[in-house]
Amino acid sequence: MADTLARSPLAPDRFPDLPAISGVQFSTAAAAVKYEGRTDVMLAVLAPGTSVAGVFTRSQTRSASVLDCQAKIGEPGEAGAAILVNSGNANAFTGKLGQSSVDEIVSAVTGVTGVPGNRVFTSSTGVIGEPLPHDRIVGVLDQLNQDLSGDAIADAAEAIRTTDTFAKGAGREISINGDSVKIAGIAKGSGMIAPDMATMLVYIFTDAKIDRADLQAMVSDLNRSSFNCITVDSDTSTSDSLLVCATGQSGVDCSHQEPAFRTALKEVMTELAHLVVRDGEGATKFVTIDVTGAETDAEARTHGLAIANSPLVKTAIAGEDPNWGRVVMAVGKSGAAADRDRLSIWFGDVLVAAQGWVSPDYREEDGAAVMKQQDIRIGVDLGLGGGSATVWTCDLTHGYIAINADYRS
Amino acid sequence: MADTLARSPLAPDRFPDLPAISGVQFSTAAAAVKYEGRTDVMLAVLAPGTSVAGVFTRSQTRSASVLDCQAKIGEPGEAGAAILVNSGNANAFTGKLGQSSVDEIVSAVTGVTGVPGNRVFTSSTGVIGEPLPHDRIVGVLDQLNQDLSGDAIADAAEAIRTTDTFAKGAGREISINGDSVKIAGIAKGSGMIAPDMATMLVYIFTDAKIDRADLQAMVSDLNRSSFNCITVDSDTSTSDSLLVCATGQSGVDCSHQEPAFRTALKEVMTELAHLVVRDGEGATKFVTIDVTGAETDAEARTHGLAIANSPLVKTAIAGEDPNWGRVVMAVGKSGAAADRDRLSIWFGDVLVAAQGWVSPDYREEDGAAVMKQQDIRIGVDLGLGGGSATVWTCDLTHGYIAINADYRS
Repeated sequence: MADTLARSPLAPDRFPDLPAISGVQFSTAAAAVKYEGRTDVMLAVLAPGTSVAGVFTRSQTRSASVLDCQAKIGEPGEAGAAILVNSGNANAFTGKLGQSSVDEIVSAVTGVTGVPGNRVFTSSTGVIGEPLPHDRIVGVLDQLNQDLSGDAIADAAEAIRTTDTFAKGAGREISINGDSVKIAGIAKGSGMIAPDMATMLVYIFTDAKIDRADLQAMVSDLNRSSFNCITVDSDTSTSDSLLVCATGQSGVDCSHQEPAFRTALKEVMTELAHLVVRDGEGATKFVTIDVTGAETDAEARTHGLAIANSPLVKTAIAGEDPNWGRVVMAVGKSGAAADRDRLSIWFGDVLVAAQGWVSPDYREEDGAAVMKQQDIRIGVDLGLGGGSATVWTCDLTHGYIAINADYRS
Repeated sequence: MADTLARSPLAPDRFPDLPAISGVQFSTAAAAVKYEGRTDVMLAVLAPGTSVAGVFTRSQTRSASVLDCQAKIGEPGEAGAAILVNSGNANAFTGKLGQSSVDEIVSAVTGVTGVPGNRVFTSSTGVIGEPLPHDRIVGVLDQLNQDLSGDAIADAAEAIRTTDTFAKGAGREISINGDSVKIAGIAKGSGMIAPDMATMLVYIFTDAKIDRADLQAMVSDLNRSSFNCITVDSDTSTSDSLLVCATGQSGVDCSHQEPAFRTALKEVMTELAHLVVRDGEGATKFVTIDVTGAETDAEARTHGLAIANSPLVKTAIAGEDPNWGRVVMAVGKSGAAADRDRLSIWFGDVLVAAQGWVSPDYREEDGAAVMKQQDIRIGVDLGLGGGSATVWTCDLTHGYIAINADYRS
């Protein structure tokens, strides 16, 4: 495994300036769980009254900390909350040791912060199959608790990285009836990345005031068209977790689907989801796939993911080849309804194929010009109904093979 | 696209000696549909009384010749039959020209051979989106009809190739109550291969006597555990077709699921399916995935295909890494039932993980030794029920990327 991978060519220039969120404090430490010479533990403590919502991997082999978070997430709580994340070791596939490590960490966080156990959410990411040396994490908790600061979100984004080539953050500040509401989020991961099954973790904080049930409904809904519409290589980690915490300290009520807040949260989630794709292993192209005219929105997404996960489509993109035939193949294999002779395909704004045939106005050089861009859009219209969806992915290159197959040689 | 790819390292040493089948004759020609200097058209003519059965791609964007074959395959027929295959052009994605090319070819085959149109089965494989120059195919039909021979099956296997690195054939000769029954089959393809969306085509001939309905039931059933259990890169061509033709000329009745015949046909189908995998682009490993203990056979196959199609599993295999964690990840994402703590994983005969944890007796060097073989077996037991399935695939290497992304550079 490469110790330090070059920053993705698709990464933004720098970590963004994120608004400080009242009611959230962060700290980081170097516990040497696995990595030396860098931070690998993050603690976030949230003030009493915080609503916590989340979505988690659907993997049937999900890890102990995911199961633990899922058991807790639905419980209402007026107490504070805490999030403890370590990188370097995923605490996965170690039998019953997994849950006992989670228990030890939760118990220690409670002891140090006073946050009740049922409001302590843990995540672990890194190597699998090795027992988590949780004593090292417990050993830095006093220091973490003392170092808590409202301005340390960028440090937090760094500490949770595994093989990410850049720390990921996104935020918004909006005005609702003259009052300010802030959102700040961090993420790590790039789909599934080897060899650590790195996992996608997302933590979003806001000072909006919103009750738990409303927040959960909003998060679950917005997740469907953001994180559930990205794929790097179709491999789903056993530990993917997303938490959204609303401290309420702005005093601004954002319940009942407050539209400006919902839009801002959607933008933050979408931006973070895109950053995960941009860190896809070996990625050189950021690809947006817009599907329209499907029988339903769900079928549109099915088509989009089939295209986004097709090795032949992804390698064509890597080769800057406007290969519409492979796109049609992927639509045909997706399982969702399609009529070959009603399909239309665009690369960028260039209509390449319509009604089952290459467009008479299409010139190969126009399609090729689109494919030379770093950001590429593929449009597909099924011509069957009103269903639509947008999916994002990256290309499949030698870099992916080098990272995932060559690292032991 | 490489004009001539090196013969796959997983290929057999030579094309096998196949038994001649009474009632079938073959011929080939060089019609310059696309390729120069090689044969690219195959004609097979079958005697009256031949039963023809088939299975075809489920792609929603299947080609005109597939639709045409599907419309004809269910019709009983006492007349002879004919199969006409061209390589170099897939007759796909050309709108209504697709069907008119099929009609022209079928009509011409009838004119030359006397076989009725509803017993003429066509396939095309090669570049897509370019109209098929069917006149060139029609132009060689007289010659093809004159050159028909009972011994030309090896030539037929060559003529149908596109980017295959070796011609594929398999056969059996069995004795039923002292009477001989022969089976000989050819195939082309390696899953989906670029840039021609090469398609998987399979033609199997036997002198067994078996009525059409029995033959179709047997072929559909055996297809489920052979061709439906292979994957190279999860991409399904728009033109995959399999035909089995029983001339009856041995006089040996193999209706009603005659067991020795069924076993021999299963072996031929499985052997051809394996050859398709062995020609997978860039393949260096032939992988058998045995899944047991699933809730149902269908769920076992779902798990098997999730493992076989996982880029992270395939690259680990390419890197000769006994990475059981990625196998568990793939099982977890498959959608079929799994209990993480009941899973057992083997590489070859080496038990690597059991009950959600690395086996205490496992030594990395034992797993690594298995992974150094060219043929690799992965065993997965779900510990839930009696469902089982076996799936075959190949690894994912730089070779795949080079063929599919680099060919234009």
